[in-house]
Amino acid sequence: MTFSFQLEHRDGGTAARAGRITTAHGEVLTPAFMPVGTVGSVKTLTPDDLRGAGCDVLLGNTYHLYLRPGVDTVRTLGGLHRFMGWRGAILTDSGGFQVMSLNELNKVSEEGVEFRSHLDGSRHLIGPETAMRIQDGLGADIAMSFDQLIELPAPIEKVREAVDRTLRWARRGLDERARLRGEGRGVMALFGINQGGTDAAERARCFATLRGLEFDGYALGGLWVGEGRTLGLEMVERDCAEFPADRPRYLMGVGHPVDVVEAVARGVDMMDCVLPTRNARRGTVFVSTGRLVVRNAAYARDERPLDPECDCDTCRKFSRAYLRHLFVSGELLGMRLASVHAVHQMISLVRRARTAIAEGRYAAFRSEFLDKFRSNETLVRAAS
Amino acid sequence: MTFSFQLEHRDGGTAARAGRITTAHGEVLTPAFMPVGTVGSVKTLTPDDLRGAGCDVLLGNTYHLYLRPGVDTVRTLGGLHRFMGWRGAILTDSGGFQVMSLNELNKVSEEGVEFRSHLDGSRHLIGPETAMRIQDGLGADIAMSFDQLIELPAPIEKVREAVDRTLRWARRGLDERARLRGEGRGVMALFGINQGGTDAAERARCFATLRGLEFDGYALGGLWVGEGRTLGLEMVERDCAEFPADRPRYLMGVGHPVDVVEAVARGVDMMDCVLPTRNARRGTVFVSTGRLVVRNAAYARDERPLDPECDCDTCRKFSRAYLRHLFVSGELLGMRLASVHAVHQMISLVRRARTAIAEGRYAAFRSEFLDKFRSNETLVRAAS
Repeated sequence: MTFSFQLEHRDGGTAARAGRITTAHGEVLTPAFMPVGTVGSVKTLTPDDLRGAGCDVLLGNTYHLYLRPGVDTVRTLGGLHRFMGWRGAILTDSGGFQVMSLNELNKVSEEGVEFRSHLDGSRHLIGPETAMRIQDGLGADIAMSFDQLIELPAPIEKVREAVDRTLRWARRGLDERARLRGEGRGVMALFGINQGGTDAAERARCFATLRGLEFDGYALGGLWVGEGRTLGLEMVERDCAEFPADRPRYLMGVGHPVDVVEAVARGVDMMDCVLPTRNARRGTVFVSTGRLVVRNAAYARDERPLDPECDCDTCRKFSRAYLRHLFVSGELLGMRLASVHAVHQMISLVRRARTAIAEGRYAAFRSEFLDKFRSNETLVRAAS
Repeated sequence: MTFSFQLEHRDGGTAARAGRITTAHGEVLTPAFMPVGTVGSVKTLTPDDLRGAGCDVLLGNTYHLYLRPGVDTVRTLGGLHRFMGWRGAILTDSGGFQVMSLNELNKVSEEGVEFRSHLDGSRHLIGPETAMRIQDGLGADIAMSFDQLIELPAPIEKVREAVDRTLRWARRGLDERARLRGEGRGVMALFGINQGGTDAAERARCFATLRGLEFDGYALGGLWVGEGRTLGLEMVERDCAEFPADRPRYLMGVGHPVDVVEAVARGVDMMDCVLPTRNARRGTVFVSTGRLVVRNAAYARDERPLDPECDCDTCRKFSRAYLRHLFVSGELLGMRLASVHAVHQMISLVRRARTAIAEGRYAAFRSEFLDKFRSNETLVRAAS
């Protein structure tokens, strides 16, 4: 198994850390932001675009790839890396989030989650063992434990039950990986997921057991599902204070630049989110001074790039006026160029965070970033 | 004015020619295929993609750009080249085709064509003078004369009237360019358009006048509108036999590989068509052995590239299986990767044609191409 994590720097003024994950598909610098390649592509972008943006790790969705093209097809074609032409690392989620959120008619039992495909209505079951076998078949560098999600807020008994089941499923997933390894497979790293929603005591209780299991890293589960930034960050701070320093910490589903900067300050190493690229396809991008709505009429003759401080391919070559025109005209190139910026912007953000951590000035970096991000100054129309 | 055409080679066995057009935005090797950048982008592709495919000239649509973002906006932003980030040559059409084909309620008079915008219903008139001013404002390297199109088949009197009006409009366009040049503008080259549909006598009559006007090149108009390949190619042969050897010849709206190869054999220098890229976005591409429907189930596990003989970025990096998956899943990256192939395939075709002409073996090139193109051999499922 080729997986290791080196903690390289700890910031003095915050809990921020900088590290390096080694995988069979190269190194991943942390803090890391993972673009989401839902069904085998980060929408509109090629692997070359992603590399060009400095990306070293992607997230692939187990649920989507399991249904289409199917794990046997992906395995036959040499695994997800080869299938999609991506040479960097891949983390796959467990499928747990999608089987719950994309399926109204799912049935949760001790065995797993039974659901109907959102594509053709066919019936399937994914449980802790199948989730391992699928992720192994896809060829993930990092797999995620299959956990039970519940809708929040929920009565405390519900939260407890979900925590207990998540822990039983965590053991079963580890056992299944061990079984696969016995067959010469299952080389992937495996991350456990801490649950308990926004109940600090439940999260602590969950991790008390989880820490005893042989996971290669730990994820912060059940957060950023509507609880609000303040409470979410409180839970992040709590979990990170307890997680062992020598394992990577992954905050799932977080991708707003402010959340990223705040989570890193609390000790998070990895994040993923569709938000930046989904927003980009809809014509809204994050720039260093906030949010920019590309089709705003104010940009019709604005020759400046989306973000004058960005050195992505889009910002080096195209004006706001052109991008606005593409969006107003419904041209697909607009989505693509905005997505190039969006991915570059997030990766550049975590890279700058990493440098600040290495130099022991993360607190200053964070306040400068937040002040500027909230300034909205590029939204003012260019003099013309 | 920076525009010249050098005829460099004539094939011995056919009427095919190889040449070189010089513009203020670089050289254009002929035979040339021009991808169509309808509203300021060749859909899904960047200028870098186009350059990577060997493209040296694009077509821009006057009608679309006139309506959105508008010629004043494009001019203010430094012209179409700068607006879209394209450093190569641009030929703009006159808008005549769109004002007729996208507008049921157009009114043709001696002044021009009055039409309603397909975007917002607003009323506009484009005539021979406005067509010049718009193309000049866009910054075209090569502008097209505003001609009158009619639906075919049509009674001979209708054809004659359209020819006569096209000739009057041709003179007015030239006069308008002269007037613009008096103001220090109008640097673009201007091509006249021969009309007369599939009536050889009318085409001859039209050109008898057109040849006396100071056009920098000549286009073959009113063809590939449903008359069929045989009759179309007959008209091409007729026109080319009459057109002066020292001016480029542009066959409008032609882009099927077989038509391209046949038109070049008859002396055509330039062509354009949305067909290859439009087909590509819908999941059908031309390959060296014919047509390939990407979402065909036979390709689900086919590791070969779309065209094993193609060296485009898509064929060098991605399998049919992956492209099929992208199309079946509705991923925009599929359209983009297929478009990269489509443009590369057409430009590579005219480049190989050029080499064959230079080596005096175009007849052999043509028959080898046609034999292979019609073989459909890559459509057979890969052994697996």
